[in-house]
Amino acid sequence: MLTLYFAPGGCSLAPHIALEEAGAEYEARKVDFAANEQRSAEYLAINPKGRVPALVTPRGILTETPAILAYIAQSFPGAALAPVADFYEFAEMQAFNAYLSSTLHVAHAHGVRGTRWADAPEAIDDMKRKMPEVVTSCFEMVEQKMLRGPWVMGKRYTVADAYLFTVAQWIEKDQVDTSVIPRVLEHRERMKQRPAVAKVLAREAAA
Amino acid sequence: MLTLYFAPGGCSLAPHIALEEAGAEYEARKVDFAANEQRSAEYLAINPKGRVPALVTPRGILTETPAILAYIAQSFPGAALAPVADFYEFAEMQAFNAYLSSTLHVAHAHGVRGTRWADAPEAIDDMKRKMPEVVTSCFEMVEQKMLRGPWVMGKRYTVADAYLFTVAQWIEKDQVDTSVIPRVLEHRERMKQRPAVAKVLAREAAA
Repeated sequence: MLTLYFAPGGCSLAPHIALEEAGAEYEARKVDFAANEQRSAEYLAINPKGRVPALVTPRGILTETPAILAYIAQSFPGAALAPVADFYEFAEMQAFNAYLSSTLHVAHAHGVRGTRWADAPEAIDDMKRKMPEVVTSCFEMVEQKMLRGPWVMGKRYTVADAYLFTVAQWIEKDQVDTSVIPRVLEHRERMKQRPAVAKVLAREAAA
Repeated sequence: MLTLYFAPGGCSLAPHIALEEAGAEYEARKVDFAANEQRSAEYLAINPKGRVPALVTPRGILTETPAILAYIAQSFPGAALAPVADFYEFAEMQAFNAYLSSTLHVAHAHGVRGTRWADAPEAIDDMKRKMPEVVTSCFEMVEQKMLRGPWVMGKRYTVADAYLFTVAQWIEKDQVDTSVIPRVLEHRERMKQRPAVAKVLAREAAA
């Protein structure tokens, strides 16, 4: 039995979809960011970094989206959610996930969490103002150089698709210039057709 | 034959050490950041993101430090640079690497590359001013919750050690409060005793 701690609409959506696609036996528990639950003593005991996702496993607790996605794919090989037997292809998929985590998600975070990196209100405002341009450039990189189509890695669906779909939830709110990323938008629509994705979206919306 | 593109002192030091520890047949090629070579047409054809590291393999080019580290560990199982057969332990190691990549390295980058996320000179200055405090808090998280000792994962040396050693090269320049991270400093000294580490440091210093 696995327990995923998630925040609706956060990057925890990616492992949430992956668990559902894997056919895993799991429970999804909401962390209430509006009530600052991620900074509560109870949650910090689960993830001292005060972030989602966290995945409680029988052996311990895992954090960090790319690591959790690889773990789910490797743990449920029957679901074929990653090219786990081919180290090169696996690394290509992991490189995709790492870019979303350390570049695209970071760019997005400057819109609402600028206080992580600056104190002056003018600095926070300037980051927020520039954020749409930076996030757009990240999505353009995905569009032009990384998304093979129809799925991220080409013909085979992987956990990287769940991750791209997750960050693509933020496109409108982040005022990304959608005219330059038609293939990312098509991918998002393609993802919505998957039963596991629809089920998880409904669960997070109701949480 | 593998070719690693590196910038001396950059995060490419981690895969550089890993390749050396693995006993891989490889060539290390310097990317001259002082001459802005990372933005040259030649280098952008290798890595369109304009960053290091990039690892040229017989099958294609890999980017992103955590993905390259996992690839090296999986490709040279005899070197035992990661718990590749245990998916849970492998995920724990990957979570460590992901934290360095998406949180600690990102915090560090606000000291010198603030223009990625803001335009106003005052904003860039405010990020630079706050950077030592943010990077210190990241190293404190490593010190208190992540570094098991003597190596990152405990008794077994892994590629995560090469990565921690790499970001620990920046401690003095980033004005990190070293009084709160004695175990990280001990780890750095322990790493310097390894012949592969000494060899790679000398090669990067001479490049």
